[in-house]
Amino acid sequence: MTFATHLTGIQSRKQSLLCVGLDIDPAKMPKHFKRTPDGIGGFLGAIIEATHDLVCAYKPNLAFFEALGDDGWTILRKTMRRIPRNIVTIGDGKRGDIGNTGERYAVALFDDLGFDAVTVSPYMGRDSVEPFLMRSGKGAFVLALTSNPGSVDFQRQKVGRSPLYESVVKTSLTWDIHASLGFVVGATHPKELRRIRTLAPDVPFLIPGVGSQGGDLEASVRYGCVSQGRGAVINASRSILYASSGKDFDLAARTEAQRLRDAMERSLAD
Amino acid sequence: MTFATHLTGIQSRKQSLLCVGLDIDPAKMPKHFKRTPDGIGGFLGAIIEATHDLVCAYKPNLAFFEALGDDGWTILRKTMRRIPRNIVTIGDGKRGDIGNTGERYAVALFDDLGFDAVTVSPYMGRDSVEPFLMRSGKGAFVLALTSNPGSVDFQRQKVGRSPLYESVVKTSLTWDIHASLGFVVGATHPKELRRIRTLAPDVPFLIPGVGSQGGDLEASVRYGCVSQGRGAVINASRSILYASSGKDFDLAARTEAQRLRDAMERSLAD
Repeated sequence: MTFATHLTGIQSRKQSLLCVGLDIDPAKMPKHFKRTPDGIGGFLGAIIEATHDLVCAYKPNLAFFEALGDDGWTILRKTMRRIPRNIVTIGDGKRGDIGNTGERYAVALFDDLGFDAVTVSPYMGRDSVEPFLMRSGKGAFVLALTSNPGSVDFQRQKVGRSPLYESVVKTSLTWDIHASLGFVVGATHPKELRRIRTLAPDVPFLIPGVGSQGGDLEASVRYGCVSQGRGAVINASRSILYASSGKDFDLAARTEAQRLRDAMERSLAD
Repeated sequence: MTFATHLTGIQSRKQSLLCVGLDIDPAKMPKHFKRTPDGIGGFLGAIIEATHDLVCAYKPNLAFFEALGDDGWTILRKTMRRIPRNIVTIGDGKRGDIGNTGERYAVALFDDLGFDAVTVSPYMGRDSVEPFLMRSGKGAFVLALTSNPGSVDFQRQKVGRSPLYESVVKTSLTWDIHASLGFVVGATHPKELRRIRTLAPDVPFLIPGVGSQGGDLEASVRYGCVSQGRGAVINASRSILYASSGKDFDLAARTEAQRLRDAMERSLAD
């Protein structure tokens, strides 16, 4: 089964396009959790417990775990074990390096940590992306047009007649021998999202930026899905994780996740 | 003191431009080292012991440590402690993410692991690079033109009249408020290295590709150094680490390191 088939199957069964980004920041956790590995792991476990029936995917943000030192990797591994099997896991590390190094990243993320999919930076070209595309059944979301202000600096520069991100999309599609490819397209660029969908009608999109970054949820659903339906993985992180800093944090996280999930399903039905 | 001043001071005192890349692959280690955290740490310690007087820098390649699982981070931290103080440490992870995430990578690499410098991917633009440029005294080598075959896919694409890597160089220079900036330019592109040096006469270059990848050592020295002298950090990894698979691995590593160091010093004197 290809990654896309696996993903859209889960999305259909669970009726959800929502991905919750696990950007774990101890400074933002509710006060009653200790700032220890157990406390941090407990908070993440409670978030998963409160939201897992509402989501198609969780996306641990590797930077936030790495910033916790040696404990970070251990907390990440424990968190992975707490995610139920019928949910896609996306390792968000935006890795990308020469072939022999890229393969080590693929081992770390797919084999050791067990992610179903990863995010990959395309700057170093084919041999840096291929190690992530070579695993049948696994997924690799290549950065196309990201949600941040800096996306204007290089991604939107014109290469010939079209912007660099279009060149990334068109070129990456020619490398996709195992149907493992997906793209990251920020919800903050609805017009370009629509255009990129016409270039790549059948691959999944990971769409960040609908929460704190203020992206367009309706456009993310409308243009983010593949031609056969679903295939858009729409991510919110901080707006769910830190919805409340009180003891009701899990209920608040669930309420926000439900609100986003339901809004996406309504857009899908339109 | 800026990172560039710190680096060139060490390079002058030690009379070396050589950086040894720590791409630790247990499958390639000499047979008599156990494939355990202690065995892997012991091998890296022996390599450092055998080469430290010949190098200006060590460059742990984060992918190879991450591929070792939970132990990888611990081995990396122990290895950092074994590197003498008068040697620059470069965390080669090619990270790059939106501002709040980029800051977590900077915390992980500069504060937690204690690297003097890192490698950074420019694809996501200014707010993804800036967290690494904001630390006075620390260095950030931004990928310009990398040594691998995939560098042709996007880095050499024409943006207006000049290739994307030139745009990356010119644009990044405008962000460099703390003199923290450097560039990664592969030794496999000597002509372009010369051109990039004219665009950025004063920032350090990290130059991979002179070992197993067959890059041009003489050109790396000639065009890699800054106008005031030195500032080129020329990296070899596999050709030194795995120079011999026998019990003489440390002597063989030292011999290869000495050969490369001396060849660089000769080119510098020409």
